[in-house]
Amino acid sequence: MRIDLGQACQLLKRVDRVLILTHKSPDGDTLGSGFGLCYALRQMGKQAYVDNSDGIPKKFGYLVHGQAQLDFEPDFIVSVDTAAPDLLGGKLSVYADKIDLCVDHHMSNTIESKYLYVDSKASSASEIIFRMIDILELAWTKHMADAIYTGICTDTGCFKFSNTTPNAHRFAARLIEAGADYEKINSDMFIIKSRARMDLERHVLDNMEFYFDGRCSMTTTTREDMKVLKADASTYDGIPAITKQIEGVEVGISIRETDDDNYKISFRTSAEVNASELAQTFGGGGHIRAAGCSIKADTLQKVKDRLLETVQRSLTEFYGRNTLYK
Amino acid sequence: MRIDLGQACQLLKRVDRVLILTHKSPDGDTLGSGFGLCYALRQMGKQAYVDNSDGIPKKFGYLVHGQAQLDFEPDFIVSVDTAAPDLLGGKLSVYADKIDLCVDHHMSNTIESKYLYVDSKASSASEIIFRMIDILELAWTKHMADAIYTGICTDTGCFKFSNTTPNAHRFAARLIEAGADYEKINSDMFIIKSRARMDLERHVLDNMEFYFDGRCSMTTTTREDMKVLKADASTYDGIPAITKQIEGVEVGISIRETDDDNYKISFRTSAEVNASELAQTFGGGGHIRAAGCSIKADTLQKVKDRLLETVQRSLTEFYGRNTLYK
Repeated sequence: MRIDLGQACQLLKRVDRVLILTHKSPDGDTLGSGFGLCYALRQMGKQAYVDNSDGIPKKFGYLVHGQAQLDFEPDFIVSVDTAAPDLLGGKLSVYADKIDLCVDHHMSNTIESKYLYVDSKASSASEIIFRMIDILELAWTKHMADAIYTGICTDTGCFKFSNTTPNAHRFAARLIEAGADYEKINSDMFIIKSRARMDLERHVLDNMEFYFDGRCSMTTTTREDMKVLKADASTYDGIPAITKQIEGVEVGISIRETDDDNYKISFRTSAEVNASELAQTFGGGGHIRAAGCSIKADTLQKVKDRLLETVQRSLTEFYGRNTLYK
Repeated sequence: MRIDLGQACQLLKRVDRVLILTHKSPDGDTLGSGFGLCYALRQMGKQAYVDNSDGIPKKFGYLVHGQAQLDFEPDFIVSVDTAAPDLLGGKLSVYADKIDLCVDHHMSNTIESKYLYVDSKASSASEIIFRMIDILELAWTKHMADAIYTGICTDTGCFKFSNTTPNAHRFAARLIEAGADYEKINSDMFIIKSRARMDLERHVLDNMEFYFDGRCSMTTTTREDMKVLKADASTYDGIPAITKQIEGVEVGISIRETDDDNYKISFRTSAEVNASELAQTFGGGGHIRAAGCSIKADTLQKVKDRLLETVQRSLTEFYGRNTLYK
């Protein structure tokens, strides 16, 4: 049942012990909205706890205050920023059909909860929790401000992406006034890199190849590279974006070897090329500018050839037949 | 004579032909505040023109609308975001003692103008011009919004740095509502890199050395490197910041060979180390976390040795004698 935000707040007033579910491979927004809501509920005198199937990554440790494990029997279960049941992950999947309230900003939300509030125009789930805290007329604490600021800034790429709403900025202003440690948070989220990450970025740049007059970039990381570079999947997070940050590139491709003869491919594209269509050619999918797939092949060169053939077709379609790409 | 912002607006109402001076090696804030003011004055029915000693860099071309050269005799001269007379640069230095109004956010401002408005708490000169446009009760146009947004976002590192005020966010919200093309501006200013810049970053990472248990990073770019990489001084802009973005680094040093036996050094430091003091050792100067100097030596190794000796002293001072650095 779809409800409005005032009704969602009324529901929370009537319950006592709230378990907050966040999505697996947690990011700043699911944790920011989760902990923001958690501290709001505790200020209202309720018990509240944020859980995650993969645990809280070290880099988000500053968001965690108070109890370290669930020590109450919840009478109300809320999911935040979680677009589908399987995104709850292994540990939290037991709650998939027990969710009372789902709060999200993903239009595609498929959670089957008793009550549902989805605002796809919000920059982030944290922006929605901000509004709930205001409706509930709670006092803004530093812990709440740090959490909500983290969610808004990470989901908007620090106010850079197209989902940055005027409200994202207005709320950020109030969060800074409420004591959010924005300089430190932004430094940790956007500036400081681990040595392993720096080495991986160096590798990715060293291996960047260009095709079709610079319109396509491609970089490859093998399992052996990952080992030598002391990198894991989380170090690799965000690497695909680098392929699209180079002037003139319309299709950025990153290839990562995951298993014997198996490669994970990420596409990042500009407006000219549909990333999702590229990925679908290989049985994958995603968004119009960011998509992915897996390819099996006994040599890396075969993977590259298949990718380049598909990109060539896509560029030819866009630029017409009498181009470089025919 | 120091005046308040209301008085500054009153002055502008009484004049007809305004020349706006911006600082040499122009950045987003001097041009953003300059063009923002320019379009405000034109809306008031005045002639206005923004000038710069180095011309308008191509990447800021989207800020320029209307006349391409000064075609009137100014009756009022305003400088924006320009902290000292010599920052006007060669071409505009003729106006150094003819400035009627100086609008700036640098506390150290030494411009000798008839009227002066300096607000060192403002994130940017553009934030000040925003307030003037509001005081003057003008209608926000897209051109004004693009200009002021550019100034605020570039001077705050896209709302990341410590100078990001709540007002910077509140004004950004209104600028987005007024049509500022924030996604494109942020992409151009912060995301997309030229091939030459990408190659230079790759070089900088390839040559990164670490000392003192990873507390000091150092990267070197020779004139030959710059030539091979097709990089010039403007490509190198912002490179020093990369040395400080690595986890654990307290002193980031970038060395660039500028002439025979001559090296330009940039220091970027964390709170533990005073960059300005490091630079002063070699006759340079700057800010507490970002400073620079030049060193003459007949080999690069001698430059490195002198730098490392100084950094060692500084780290030993901070961590005490019984450390790695004694």
